[in-house]
Amino acid sequence: MEEEVKVLLAALDGLMPALPSQHAVYQVAQIKESAERILRLSNDISAAQLGSRKKIQEMSGEVVGSNPYSRLMALKRMGIVNNYENIRNFSVAIVGVGGVGSVAAEMLTRCGIGRLLLFDYDTVELANMNRLFFRPQQAGMSKTDAAVETLADINPDVVLEGYKLNVSTVDGFEKFMEALSKDFKGMQRESKSRVDLVLSCVDNYEARMVVNQACNELGQTWMESGVSEDAVSGHIQLLVPGETACFACAPPLVVASGVDERTLKREGVCAASLPTTMGIIAGLLVQNALKYLLSFGNITKYLGYSALKDFFPTMEMLPNPQCSNASCLQRQCEYAENKPFRDALEKARAEAELANAALVSKVALHEDNEWNISLIDEDEVQANIDTPSEFLPDGLSRELPASEKQVLIEDDFPETELDLDDLQRQFQTLNAD
Amino acid sequence: MEEEVKVLLAALDGLMPALPSQHAVYQVAQIKESAERILRLSNDISAAQLGSRKKIQEMSGEVVGSNPYSRLMALKRMGIVNNYENIRNFSVAIVGVGGVGSVAAEMLTRCGIGRLLLFDYDTVELANMNRLFFRPQQAGMSKTDAAVETLADINPDVVLEGYKLNVSTVDGFEKFMEALSKDFKGMQRESKSRVDLVLSCVDNYEARMVVNQACNELGQTWMESGVSEDAVSGHIQLLVPGETACFACAPPLVVASGVDERTLKREGVCAASLPTTMGIIAGLLVQNALKYLLSFGNITKYLGYSALKDFFPTMEMLPNPQCSNASCLQRQCEYAENKPFRDALEKARAEAELANAALVSKVALHEDNEWNISLIDEDEVQANIDTPSEFLPDGLSRELPASEKQVLIEDDFPETELDLDDLQRQFQTLNAD
Repeated sequence: MEEEVKVLLAALDGLMPALPSQHAVYQVAQIKESAERILRLSNDISAAQLGSRKKIQEMSGEVVGSNPYSRLMALKRMGIVNNYENIRNFSVAIVGVGGVGSVAAEMLTRCGIGRLLLFDYDTVELANMNRLFFRPQQAGMSKTDAAVETLADINPDVVLEGYKLNVSTVDGFEKFMEALSKDFKGMQRESKSRVDLVLSCVDNYEARMVVNQACNELGQTWMESGVSEDAVSGHIQLLVPGETACFACAPPLVVASGVDERTLKREGVCAASLPTTMGIIAGLLVQNALKYLLSFGNITKYLGYSALKDFFPTMEMLPNPQCSNASCLQRQCEYAENKPFRDALEKARAEAELANAALVSKVALHEDNEWNISLIDEDEVQANIDTPSEFLPDGLSRELPASEKQVLIEDDFPETELDLDDLQRQFQTLNAD
Repeated sequence: MEEEVKVLLAALDGLMPALPSQHAVYQVAQIKESAERILRLSNDISAAQLGSRKKIQEMSGEVVGSNPYSRLMALKRMGIVNNYENIRNFSVAIVGVGGVGSVAAEMLTRCGIGRLLLFDYDTVELANMNRLFFRPQQAGMSKTDAAVETLADINPDVVLEGYKLNVSTVDGFEKFMEALSKDFKGMQRESKSRVDLVLSCVDNYEARMVVNQACNELGQTWMESGVSEDAVSGHIQLLVPGETACFACAPPLVVASGVDERTLKREGVCAASLPTTMGIIAGLLVQNALKYLLSFGNITKYLGYSALKDFFPTMEMLPNPQCSNASCLQRQCEYAENKPFRDALEKARAEAELANAALVSKVALHEDNEWNISLIDEDEVQANIDTPSEFLPDGLSRELPASEKQVLIEDDFPETELDLDDLQRQFQTLNAD
């Protein structure tokens, strides 16, 4: 509009010399004044629409009101995250930009993630307004366009890619795979995939199976999320191809029985949804994603949420050696093959930790420690209190032996290379019913 | 701006007759065309800014894309909430419109709450952009103004009241109390307070003590929330004056020792925050608020969230008969006085339930029940499975007697009126250390 008004102003200037009377000149001067006022108003509006924040080259922890990253970089000072600024190196794909996906995208955007890929084929409706994120005036826009518009405004530092496509179609799947494998800024990666994490925020099993297929093929770690039709429960789950169960390893009944889930939905009946449950699930999902990407805290394998009783069940699922998904079986083989390498790494890490602990205890004790005072490691005590599963009250003993991970610290690393077939057999025995 | 352009167009029309040449007329016609285009553009912009959704007189459950309440009203069909449309009758006050309060306000707005009162004295900064809700172009606005602007756009059906004030000042506290007690649409209420719930979303103890004081004075149920300075844990808590511990019953060390908490904060150091943790806490808070207002599920007394281990502790705190807060002590007395009434109500409810269950079992059994088959109440079985605290595996027995509530069903209601002093003594004995 700015340009229109400028053209008008020029035209009025051109008119001036031809004017017949003082009165006409006065009239045109008045018109010019109006036009100039319009120009100012228009500038104000576009300033408000474009947002007032410029791109920021480097994340800083400076504590000033104008720094959108100060409270995130403070996570370093608080001892939670070692290198928060690394978040800029990560690419995350979100499949499904609905009640969970859109909020997950906003959270990652506000956290300053490097790059977000958004996949959805749907359009914003007023019926979506009972969940966070979309605004009424975006009704009619594609969810990806509306999301990119809002997110770019919130944080211009994030590279945003919107893909309006249905991953469950043949063509959509191909484009989905292409997008996940596309090189970005020449970043070198070991895997076929060029993203660091895929978040599944879809509302049907068919699409979950598709994301599962893509991630199994690419060996791509992903996280799944879901909210129940009655809006009062939900879950998040971590899926590492070959290492944990894939979505086809223990498929839901609808999937296993081959029923088309769309036939299960009745005409004129819609699922309930709440901004609370969806916001909580998005929060738990992105929290787990941040823990995974930035290496802090315990990454959760599965976390449920039941709103009526505020119940949060957890569980773990190993891969199924009889899984119907061929790529899953292939990833399971590779994971078994890599065991010696993982063991060696784990051993080296444990040894380094022990050495470090020994060094610290030597340094920490004062030489003139006449009362023989020594400190108990606060972290250790805290861990005991926080994790009921690791904490045993007096008089109780464990029925099962400690896990392999803990045993390893004392055990010697087996020098002989293990046979793959042998490993697979062990695997099958472990997983057999 | 529309008006400016209309004035301009009228002025151009007035200019027409005085024009000296055909060329000048052509020039003015061109100018008019520009002005009309500007008018159209300006209309588009205001349409986009005002939002495309009009007020809705009555909530309907109709399943159409244009109904913003269809997914909420579906909670009735799903058997979760009996009368979702009642949400329009409720007023909720939110103290602190920061990382938790703003998201809580948005959730309640999208749920179609009747009326929201927002209290904050702070201004939006770019440093707030790592949490949900505020947008960069709102930097410099007061948080209440910015929130009202955004929320009115999302849901014009909600009555929004922004109060830019600091509740911790003498003047602010007075206005806070006034706002909570102000009549709204002539709604009659039994209590002095004219809101149904207060949500505390502040970031310091002083303000929490102030909210506590106001709610104790008014006998107002409230919910408290908080997120730790390292951004990876938080909690929500229900406070019912006289019935549960108030915030002064077991004050945090900082409050109890009378230290000014501001002196504990170091220059140039800021607390960390994450959109995930704050979004989760806001979600848990509003979920509990919805359960409280719409009577569904179990209302949680205290729920903690520890992000590093996905640990969710719960607990319950009784009021302290030695509480330093005089209004709390008064509410405790009233609560004790009301015991006979509550007991009678509970007894009547239990009897009605028993009668109902007897009726159902009579009706449900077929007359020709030759195999003597009867159904187990599904809800009962489910409750046993879902609530670990109520479920006892074989071989275990409870150390403590069952709670008063369960005993009541068999006991007779004491006909003699209890003496208040006697009740108070009993109370003190119960709560004494």
